[in-house]
Amino acid sequence: MSQLNIMDSEVDIVVGALHSDLTSFMNEWKPIFSQYHLIIVKDPELKEDLIIPDGFDLDVYTQQDIDRIVGASNSIKFSGYSCRYFGYLMSRKKYIISIDDDCVPAKDDKGLLVEFVAQHISNLSTPATPFFFNTLYDPFRKGADFVRGYPFSLRSGVACSLSCGLWLNLADYDAPTQALKPSLRNTRYVDAVLTIPAGAMLPVSGINIAFDREVVGPALCPALRLAGEGKFRWETMEDIWCGLCVKVTCDHLKLGVKSGLPYVWRNERGSAVESLKKEWEGVKLMEEVVPFFQTLRLPEAAVTAEACFLEIAKAVKEKLGRSNQMFARAADAMVEWVEIWKNAGSGPLPVDN
Amino acid sequence: MSQLNIMDSEVDIVVGALHSDLTSFMNEWKPIFSQYHLIIVKDPELKEDLIIPDGFDLDVYTQQDIDRIVGASNSIKFSGYSCRYFGYLMSRKKYIISIDDDCVPAKDDKGLLVEFVAQHISNLSTPATPFFFNTLYDPFRKGADFVRGYPFSLRSGVACSLSCGLWLNLADYDAPTQALKPSLRNTRYVDAVLTIPAGAMLPVSGINIAFDREVVGPALCPALRLAGEGKFRWETMEDIWCGLCVKVTCDHLKLGVKSGLPYVWRNERGSAVESLKKEWEGVKLMEEVVPFFQTLRLPEAAVTAEACFLEIAKAVKEKLGRSNQMFARAADAMVEWVEIWKNAGSGPLPVDN
Repeated sequence: MSQLNIMDSEVDIVVGALHSDLTSFMNEWKPIFSQYHLIIVKDPELKEDLIIPDGFDLDVYTQQDIDRIVGASNSIKFSGYSCRYFGYLMSRKKYIISIDDDCVPAKDDKGLLVEFVAQHISNLSTPATPFFFNTLYDPFRKGADFVRGYPFSLRSGVACSLSCGLWLNLADYDAPTQALKPSLRNTRYVDAVLTIPAGAMLPVSGINIAFDREVVGPALCPALRLAGEGKFRWETMEDIWCGLCVKVTCDHLKLGVKSGLPYVWRNERGSAVESLKKEWEGVKLMEEVVPFFQTLRLPEAAVTAEACFLEIAKAVKEKLGRSNQMFARAADAMVEWVEIWKNAGSGPLPVDN
Repeated sequence: MSQLNIMDSEVDIVVGALHSDLTSFMNEWKPIFSQYHLIIVKDPELKEDLIIPDGFDLDVYTQQDIDRIVGASNSIKFSGYSCRYFGYLMSRKKYIISIDDDCVPAKDDKGLLVEFVAQHISNLSTPATPFFFNTLYDPFRKGADFVRGYPFSLRSGVACSLSCGLWLNLADYDAPTQALKPSLRNTRYVDAVLTIPAGAMLPVSGINIAFDREVVGPALCPALRLAGEGKFRWETMEDIWCGLCVKVTCDHLKLGVKSGLPYVWRNERGSAVESLKKEWEGVKLMEEVVPFFQTLRLPEAAVTAEACFLEIAKAVKEKLGRSNQMFARAADAMVEWVEIWKNAGSGPLPVDN
């Protein structure tokens, strides 16, 4: 991965801080984080001051910055896990890597520390192959190639825009699954990266992702907010919704989405049983949401992520918005996000007053 | 995998013998093969008598059996790798596992012998999930489950009809890739099984597969024969073609196709450079074949594998057959195969005269 050195300056690591004391989180990540610029966004609902150890190159954003730059009168809420999206807006780098603050670096199946950033950037900077499945997984990985029968015309692949990493220990299960199987832990290190085929949908977890901000940044926003959204991952749907929007956008624009490596080690917290009553709302929504995205086709005139995202918003409003106000609000948020992105997501960063 | 004991009697292992001396092959597999019924089909072009060690429960079929049961006057040739398909016809079991005679049992990443049959049967007897991708791979595997965001209505999955295993050491690359990278070996053991999403096509390699004969058996036949087909895998396309037919059939019938475990260890033989002039023919064909299968939609009235296969044959004849006689011949072979399957692939086995 020798190309990574020139790319280090093109990476922002974004952390949404839902906990005030980031000391152990940051120190665990220090070998990796200390090489990159960090953007930390404090959950506006978090009362205590952030505690961040020295030795990092970082910018911290709080409610004040959100109010100043986005304003208060809009349909987008940056509280809870959604605070990270304000960091996406403040980045000016090509690549963003986003990581939840309950994760620490993982070790691979040989006991070595996972090359977290290098793997995400490798996923994003080598081609994706969404138009034919390669049975040996990522053909651009060292030691691999395209197998017999893979059409040569498809072997150059397409640009990859989203890299979805995975989780060891506590996986990203929903509250019902956690409640039914409280001792379930993910111990299987699967040494693979694969392109999700065009047309196939997947549940993108925001716990550990990276994306090409320049290309799909405008399509990542906290649009779908559950009425009972909480401070545990299994009480949120904003990332799943966002992932479906990005996948449809990538399929339409002939861009790739990869899943697999790198893993993070995820520590447990929260009571799944307590969360169950909130979670069912999200679970029920998916029954409507998935068929909608699976059958959604965007007009050919949409040739940018912004345009695709606006088309998706339009369809959400028309087809889902009537049955449930939550979808109508999501559509409004998406339209507003594109406007915010235009004003605050590019050009020079707004300075403090 | 406790359900396997009752399923052992439902499995036939089919081997196409392209080499006369099967002694070392059979002995390497003895710990596994000795528990199952084997069908060995001798390549009609192989002159020498087969040498098969004692201690196995098996039936051997030769050119004589093929002539007697299928007859000589037809468009299907059972020579070379295609001889195994005669074994599929002679089986009366629910599941068929098919393995090339240049493979031996592999060891997993912990050094343990791969549970070859058990893994294939587990893949086939647990549901597949083609309508939404699960990022933690097979949700029915021990220690895994569906991740957050996976629609509950899709969690029961669908029946799995085809299980595609992989290869360590010499992977199933084509001749150009082998010739360009002669030292390329697959050393990566990826501990995963995944469902190939509906609508996505893949290159199915016949080296190591298992399938539900009762459901998709009629859709596996040696239809596409290259003019210069040879005795090395990279000189054949019959399995790739067959795999595309089965995938389209499974997508249409809402059945699953899985890929991943189990691995086999594949020994090398043959000169890729020598094969290059033959291989380019297959390579060129894929450029036409893949878009055809990607856009093929079958009529709703086709509700069995036979019916789907005949519809595919019709479309091949109409859309591909005009540009290339090889495709027209493939279509004829497919139609004839369904007839042969009806007569010889079910009911009591024809006895020797």
